[in-house]
Amino acid sequence: MSGNTLGTLFTVTTAGESHGPALVAIVDGCPPGLALSSADLQFDLDRRKPGTSRHTTQRQEADEVEILSGVFEGVTTGCPIGLLIRNTDQKSKDYSAIKDVFRPAHADYTYHHKYGVRDYRGGGRSSARETAMRVAAGAIAKKYLAAQGIQIRGYMSQLGPIEIPFKSWDGVNDNAFFSADPDKIPELEAYMDQLRRDQDSVGAKITVVADGVPPGLGEPVFDRLDAELAYALMSINAVKGVEVGAGFASVAQRGTEHRDELTPEGFVSNHAGGVLGGISSGQPIVASLALKPTSSITTPGRSIDVNGEAIDMITKGRHDPCVGIRATPIAEAMMALVLIDHLLRQRAQNADVKVNTPVLGQL
Amino acid sequence: MSGNTLGTLFTVTTAGESHGPALVAIVDGCPPGLALSSADLQFDLDRRKPGTSRHTTQRQEADEVEILSGVFEGVTTGCPIGLLIRNTDQKSKDYSAIKDVFRPAHADYTYHHKYGVRDYRGGGRSSARETAMRVAAGAIAKKYLAAQGIQIRGYMSQLGPIEIPFKSWDGVNDNAFFSADPDKIPELEAYMDQLRRDQDSVGAKITVVADGVPPGLGEPVFDRLDAELAYALMSINAVKGVEVGAGFASVAQRGTEHRDELTPEGFVSNHAGGVLGGISSGQPIVASLALKPTSSITTPGRSIDVNGEAIDMITKGRHDPCVGIRATPIAEAMMALVLIDHLLRQRAQNADVKVNTPVLGQL
Amino acid sequence: MSGNTLGTLFTVTTAGESHGPALVAIVDGCPPGLALSSADLQFDLDRRKPGTSRHTTQRQEADEVEILSGVFEGVTTGCPIGLLIRNTDQKSKDYSAIKDVFRPAHADYTYHHKYGVRDYRGGGRSSARETAMRVAAGAIAKKYLAAQGIQIRGYMSQLGPIEIPFKSWDGVNDNAFFSADPDKIPELEAYMDQLRRDQDSVGAKITVVADGVPPGLGEPVFDRLDAELAYALMSINAVKGVEVGAGFASVAQRGTEHRDELTPEGFVSNHAGGVLGGISSGQPIVASLALKPTSSITTPGRSIDVNGEAIDMITKGRHDPCVGIRATPIAEAMMALVLIDHLLRQRAQNADVKVNTPVLGQL
Amino acid sequence: MSGNTLGTLFTVTTAGESHGPALVAIVDGCPPGLALSSADLQFDLDRRKPGTSRHTTQRQEADEVEILSGVFEGVTTGCPIGLLIRNTDQKSKDYSAIKDVFRPAHADYTYHHKYGVRDYRGGGRSSARETAMRVAAGAIAKKYLAAQGIQIRGYMSQLGPIEIPFKSWDGVNDNAFFSADPDKIPELEAYMDQLRRDQDSVGAKITVVADGVPPGLGEPVFDRLDAELAYALMSINAVKGVEVGAGFASVAQRGTEHRDELTPEGFVSNHAGGVLGGISSGQPIVASLALKPTSSITTPGRSIDVNGEAIDMITKGRHDPCVGIRATPIAEAMMALVLIDHLLRQRAQNADVKVNTPVLGQL
Repeated sequence: MSGNTLGTLFTVTTAGESHGPALVAIVDGCPPGLALSSADLQFDLDRRKPGTSRHTTQRQEADEVEILSGVFEGVTTGCPIGLLIRNTDQKSKDYSAIKDVFRPAHADYTYHHKYGVRDYRGGGRSSARETAMRVAAGAIAKKYLAAQGIQIRGYMSQLGPIEIPFKSWDGVNDNAFFSADPDKIPELEAYMDQLRRDQDSVGAKITVVADGVPPGLGEPVFDRLDAELAYALMSINAVKGVEVGAGFASVAQRGTEHRDELTPEGFVSNHAGGVLGGISSGQPIVASLALKPTSSITTPGRSIDVNGEAIDMITKGRHDPCVGIRATPIAEAMMALVLIDHLLRQRAQNADVKVNTPVLGQL
Repeated sequence: MSGNTLGTLFTVTTAGESHGPALVAIVDGCPPGLALSSADLQFDLDRRKPGTSRHTTQRQEADEVEILSGVFEGVTTGCPIGLLIRNTDQKSKDYSAIKDVFRPAHADYTYHHKYGVRDYRGGGRSSARETAMRVAAGAIAKKYLAAQGIQIRGYMSQLGPIEIPFKSWDGVNDNAFFSADPDKIPELEAYMDQLRRDQDSVGAKITVVADGVPPGLGEPVFDRLDAELAYALMSINAVKGVEVGAGFASVAQRGTEHRDELTPEGFVSNHAGGVLGGISSGQPIVASLALKPTSSITTPGRSIDVNGEAIDMITKGRHDPCVGIRATPIAEAMMALVLIDHLLRQRAQNADVKVNTPVLGQL
Repeated sequence: MSGNTLGTLFTVTTAGESHGPALVAIVDGCPPGLALSSADLQFDLDRRKPGTSRHTTQRQEADEVEILSGVFEGVTTGCPIGLLIRNTDQKSKDYSAIKDVFRPAHADYTYHHKYGVRDYRGGGRSSARETAMRVAAGAIAKKYLAAQGIQIRGYMSQLGPIEIPFKSWDGVNDNAFFSADPDKIPELEAYMDQLRRDQDSVGAKITVVADGVPPGLGEPVFDRLDAELAYALMSINAVKGVEVGAGFASVAQRGTEHRDELTPEGFVSNHAGGVLGGISSGQPIVASLALKPTSSITTPGRSIDVNGEAIDMITKGRHDPCVGIRATPIAEAMMALVLIDHLLRQRAQNADVKVNTPVLGQL
Repeated sequence: MSGNTLGTLFTVTTAGESHGPALVAIVDGCPPGLALSSADLQFDLDRRKPGTSRHTTQRQEADEVEILSGVFEGVTTGCPIGLLIRNTDQKSKDYSAIKDVFRPAHADYTYHHKYGVRDYRGGGRSSARETAMRVAAGAIAKKYLAAQGIQIRGYMSQLGPIEIPFKSWDGVNDNAFFSADPDKIPELEAYMDQLRRDQDSVGAKITVVADGVPPGLGEPVFDRLDAELAYALMSINAVKGVEVGAGFASVAQRGTEHRDELTPEGFVSNHAGGVLGGISSGQPIVASLALKPTSSITTPGRSIDVNGEAIDMITKGRHDPCVGIRATPIAEAMMALVLIDHLLRQRAQNADVKVNTPVLGQL
């Protein structure tokens, strides 16, 4: 495969550039009989959409999705689902100045060397605008999973230096940060306001949780559930690290501490993050991802042009000072896409498996 | 694909259980004309091999690999390379006691629910013994990459609470820990000796570096080089987290700090870990992985049996008190497999690309 | 993969139903730097288009394709190419009568059993309308291949009982049948006119030829060039057989007759059809395909409804009396897609291969 | 993928050359819980085995298969199944004479150009010896399918000019030709005896039938069941054509003749060969394949050497005068592998589909 398709049985193929005419996706492998309309996709698209608070880019995109196929009389047919989002607010003139130069920490330099030719308008294909289609496709997966009792939710667990502990899912969608602690919001707002004044950007950490996942999903030894989650989450723009469960904290843990003991009433802890040997255990799947600070900042930096000459670089245009702020729905979408794919794979091969052992939940 | 194949153009398919007759692999897509003998694979197999120091399991395995196909008169033919390692020291009797119970933090419970039937001897397919074939296959990739000027090396960067800063590649293979700082070794040995007395285990962090990688490897938007590295490294037994470059430290970084500026003389830093927009930049590729503490410890723990009844669990047998100690060659192998796959993919599609911009190295 | 993606490195994913809003495709893996505009796709789309002679369906479709992505300033960027064709002449009212019945020899019955739900309008996804996107994608492949000296052309070699020997490529696109013998056209027209009067349909045989293919394309032992051609051609609606070279005539041939001898001046014959051991030989690639008669005919036939009750079936609507008539550009497209995919695969793995043996052509 | 893996969910990866140490395969995706031993594979291996009648090559191979993994206590575990067959009767000295020359109609010339290096001993990887592993893997698929009520059987339907109509499955395995008409056997034997005296070879046609296949298998629009059958059957050595149902006879058929009418009692005919719109209909799946005459004949022919110089070529060694004679179990294996793969794919995506329409059989 050529890089723009995700999944084995539930596949998502996307195309489209930041400032081209449209984004497009084909979702193949969705089971038939799922009630689906574009409204089902719009909720998450709106959560990801730019321009909804002062803390994100001021680009305005309606992000209205049209379903081109695969849905008939309100339900999926089992045939591939075509999705289309027209770009409306491209402002390509903003970008002509960066045609022959490489913005530090952007993909300009690597696209140039890889392809020789490059759509420099707004990052072209390397722009996070591409993730709109991930969110749209993920919304289909989420809806199917919800009918199986699987719920996927995310929150921002750290903004720059500020850790944001999980308090409650209530209200997580009601603030610009996807903070699961409403009391933290003033601190986050103040931080962001200062950051803009500093003409700088900052990183963030997002945590995604899937509840209701049955045991058995994941295909060792390579296509482990955690390995495919790592792939899917790391494929999001700006992500530099992925953890499952205790993640890097495992390094300093002792076995007696890390191992999640089992009792007839349930697992007593979830350091594993719901995955053992690459297979879901029935506990909540918990993954976190680290997003780097936005590369587009107005503070000048050193760079070179296509001839290799030194230049001074200032990135203008409209940018998110923290790409992590809009990343929560994207991370949820990627987790949903991995889970539905593995749900289908599990059904294919292990349809006949029957065990008497009760499924444990989490204490 | 069914989970036991890795890669798109350079593919590795493995089979074999810890206590079955043999491990087997088929490596498909190796370019023809590469001088190759089983001795080329043995070096890394010996680095991964159990029983070479008092800090690893005392299981004795020769891990001698036989090349069954794909090599003729000493060079690869372009046809698939079959690899065979016979298991010799299985001691299956050690494991009959765990037939109907689930060891905490092991894959017993999840394999049981997924497949209904389970080879309980030494973890069966879920055993880290499986990684011997990754190392063998990775050694082929490494040899090919070396001929292209690409060198892959790893070291242990943390053992439990002890951070081990990189000092030099010299001697990294001469100590049981793959420590790149020889002065740290006494501290590591003392720590491990105490750990065994405590009947406990501990986690570790490994860092892998690829030097000489040309810019252009990686296939956005999904098959980004870092995404595929995350997948490959997370698929190693016991891994709970993967970072590229600054990784989770990016969360607290500012954009002015994180972005790697470019000068005609080279990149001034490498927070990106050699990957921008999912494509290699020509800088060293740097990835780290977190390994959890070994699950097999002799300190008793709570668990259940296949009927859901509470039991007290003690894991006997021969085990590594820190699986991270033998993980360095495995992590190198996985990075090598990802890089050769993307080298071939890049050739396929961008064979005609010519740019005049000089390739920057790292300052 | 879920069935709607073709190819390994040059992949085509399609979606869209006969009477839905649009057809859509994503072509991934096209090398960068290829000059491309929608006009390049329109030539073959127009060759396949319905309603251009009295011998095809009278449905009118402009089949105008919009390029949504992957092309910037007139050249491909290496990023996925999104293609969109809006359906304009759907006439869904024609089809409500067949909602609960199965047309003999159509996919109605099998889609019903497979998916449970079915877009019955004009065959939905099973309609040959879907092939418009194959032709559009194939035109991209053709253009790239042409720049490598590879030319793909097809002709109708049999219409019902009438064999149409190859005479010349001149004029093959100037008649409704893609006959490579202009003298046969009056006979073909008379046959078709009588067929319409008989309210019947008939099969056809198409032959496709690729000239200029270098030796070395094809990936044994499974992904042989001829195996992938067979797959691609058999995947076209209504195709029931595929041959390469002498095809079924090989059954009665002797080895002394079939084997294509080699001389320093070239191969003396081409019974192999340009493929030996699954790899192109440098001779022309020759494949033929058998298309069944159109299933939609107005002569009544026996069938059942969704309750299993017997009915009498008459298929109304606008249909091709011989689907083979429009199949030539589709078959060319499929051959082009297979060849470009294998050209890229060959480059990936065998970039370094150098042999001194001259490449033979055909005498 | 690199060409030596077949399938999407039930995958078979093979390696091994004609005169190398061994053939090896990894079968991944077999559902757990299937009783399996090497004896289950031996029946079909023996049917394919050389040297069992005077009409096949006199090479002696025990073709004893060892199961290396994936089976525990007599049942499959869901983990990949490793298979090993040691080569025992290689006689490599027979082949040194052909090291620098190309045998007409063999893969020598194309392997040479593709890979630059070539295992010339007995055709190396291009030898039909490779198909032993297809048969072994296919036997696993057959056993699983049999438990689902699906039976796959084949017969020789034509030997050179002699058509062999189907009479009965009884005795088809009791003659060297897999003739389903015992009365034809003397004629076939006489023909073969004369052929050997003529120092020539001849083609054959094989027909394979699957009974008991449920409706719904096949994944349009590309991975149609017939398309994947065409791929799998065309990938067998020496195959030049594949038909489903009426095949090439469809070309001259009228729609009124070809279409298989449906009645509440069943389909009235099976011109479709059990596949409509790329999906199984519940009727028997019927496919035929054309095998070319063996290329290795002792009658001299013109060829060239690696320097491009003209030579006279005589192929010595032990060869089948009609490769079609041993092809029946191979064709069955390939059909079995395609069907099990699509059975699993159908389960994955359409597990919830329920229709009330009765499944029709064949009248």
